[in-house]
Amino acid sequence: MRRQTDDPMKLPEFFEEDRFAVDAQLDRLMPTESAQPPSIHQAMRYSVFAGGKRIRPILCLETARIFDSDVSAAFYPGCALEFIHTYSLIHDDLPALDNDDLRRGKPTCHKRFGEAIAILAGDALLTLAFETLACAPVSADRRVAMSGEIASAAGTVNGMVGGQVADLEAEGKQVGPEALEYIHRSKTAALIWASVTSGALCAGASTHDVNRLRRFGETIGWAFQVTDDILDVEESSAALGKTAGKDIAQQKATYPAVFGLERSHQIAKELATKAIDELQVFGMRADRVRTIAEFLVLRRA
Amino acid sequence: MRRQTDDPMKLPEFFEEDRFAVDAQLDRLMPTESAQPPSIHQAMRYSVFAGGKRIRPILCLETARIFDSDVSAAFYPGCALEFIHTYSLIHDDLPALDNDDLRRGKPTCHKRFGEAIAILAGDALLTLAFETLACAPVSADRRVAMSGEIASAAGTVNGMVGGQVADLEAEGKQVGPEALEYIHRSKTAALIWASVTSGALCAGASTHDVNRLRRFGETIGWAFQVTDDILDVEESSAALGKTAGKDIAQQKATYPAVFGLERSHQIAKELATKAIDELQVFGMRADRVRTIAEFLVLRRA
Repeated sequence: MRRQTDDPMKLPEFFEEDRFAVDAQLDRLMPTESAQPPSIHQAMRYSVFAGGKRIRPILCLETARIFDSDVSAAFYPGCALEFIHTYSLIHDDLPALDNDDLRRGKPTCHKRFGEAIAILAGDALLTLAFETLACAPVSADRRVAMSGEIASAAGTVNGMVGGQVADLEAEGKQVGPEALEYIHRSKTAALIWASVTSGALCAGASTHDVNRLRRFGETIGWAFQVTDDILDVEESSAALGKTAGKDIAQQKATYPAVFGLERSHQIAKELATKAIDELQVFGMRADRVRTIAEFLVLRRA
Repeated sequence: MRRQTDDPMKLPEFFEEDRFAVDAQLDRLMPTESAQPPSIHQAMRYSVFAGGKRIRPILCLETARIFDSDVSAAFYPGCALEFIHTYSLIHDDLPALDNDDLRRGKPTCHKRFGEAIAILAGDALLTLAFETLACAPVSADRRVAMSGEIASAAGTVNGMVGGQVADLEAEGKQVGPEALEYIHRSKTAALIWASVTSGALCAGASTHDVNRLRRFGETIGWAFQVTDDILDVEESSAALGKTAGKDIAQQKATYPAVFGLERSHQIAKELATKAIDELQVFGMRADRVRTIAEFLVLRRA
């Protein structure tokens, strides 16, 4: 599966253009730093522009491209997903949760702006996500479908918040493969499948195609989190830009802890292969999505 | 304005039926306590069913009734607003913000479930609000309009989170009437006008009527917060079910602190009268909304 000509450590170069465009749209869709009250907008922008890879918006855009060459509307769900992803990182880093001081090599939001503003900045980003979806330049039907899909993925029942809770509660406990699967599929894979399905819905894909892409997103998102667990063990702090080995220190439920490193690598690859098989029906139109999928499990940091 | 026959201390009796119906819908729209992972659903339900008056959902329902006798769809925006109101209370009570131990006479969410679960329960309720709006049984156009309206009211620019930030940053400072007005209009009035406008939008009101009702909601919501400030000074802990006099202890920016108690009472009444004037055009159809408006400024606790 490894591509001979590309460096799997970096997001493929031809996606730099997407990332640049996503950053411009994030900037346009957020209140300026001088908008009243400035402190909250500074904190929101600090965290959104802290150097994220924009994997979710890019997945959203490139999934939309399978169905429509004009992907301009897909920036709305894409940016909404990045706002939600960023809010989840801000809240996750808080002292009451993971208590992290560093994120992407910079002080975390609460370290820089204090806990109160960090909590409210997370709340504000989650709210802004749904405001953004409500004004996407597509039919009301598509906007509502995306909003429901993303809210469900970000929620408690098989969604991101449910996964975070299960993850917290598994700390320091013996966790079996089933509980581990629940955590990974909810905590990380949910926003990944929502990136894929909201891009498809935005571009008017059929229910059949949306369901197929949801299966792709669920599986590649799961592989993505397994890879994250592996990286936490293998990479240095410098490369990750966050405190490496933290999962072990916090006795987190991870694939390497339950299955060992070698088997974890195997699982990630098997999941990626299974996910990519779902894309076959879309042929060359899914080439870019396929490349992102490969990156998600081959990357090093 | 005081009604001779009613006791202004309590929500008018004929709204008990609404409250009962709202509670049943809240119960139906939330995951059960046994849904995985249970702790987060217990915390969400603990705070939602902690004895709120349901002012926002009732305002939403009764505004919808101005335009349509069938208000069953208005439970969706009504419950969404109650989820958002509850999330804001949970996060406001956290140690990093107001650090409150009691809310409606019961331990606050973080006192009962710990800070991590309280933060996530707030996040989950905010998310559930938009999931609820996405599945309201009205046209996609109306669902999107309500979602945009409510997201804007809950956000940072003239919305609830902006007001909370300004409120936090005003603590211990000399605050002028303009800053005070911004705080009250954003922190509290925003969700009140969104209750009114989302009810109207749900029932298919014209843009002209929605705008008129927004003005009503802005003004009555502002009066509501002035009354809250007054109650904090005048009432005992027992009647409020929370720590009274806390505004003073925390050096919060309040109307009694800036204008004195007597002038604050006057301001609340003037605002209420101005608000209620906006309802004149709706005649008797707005009687119930008028009665809630009167309650909001005449109540004692």
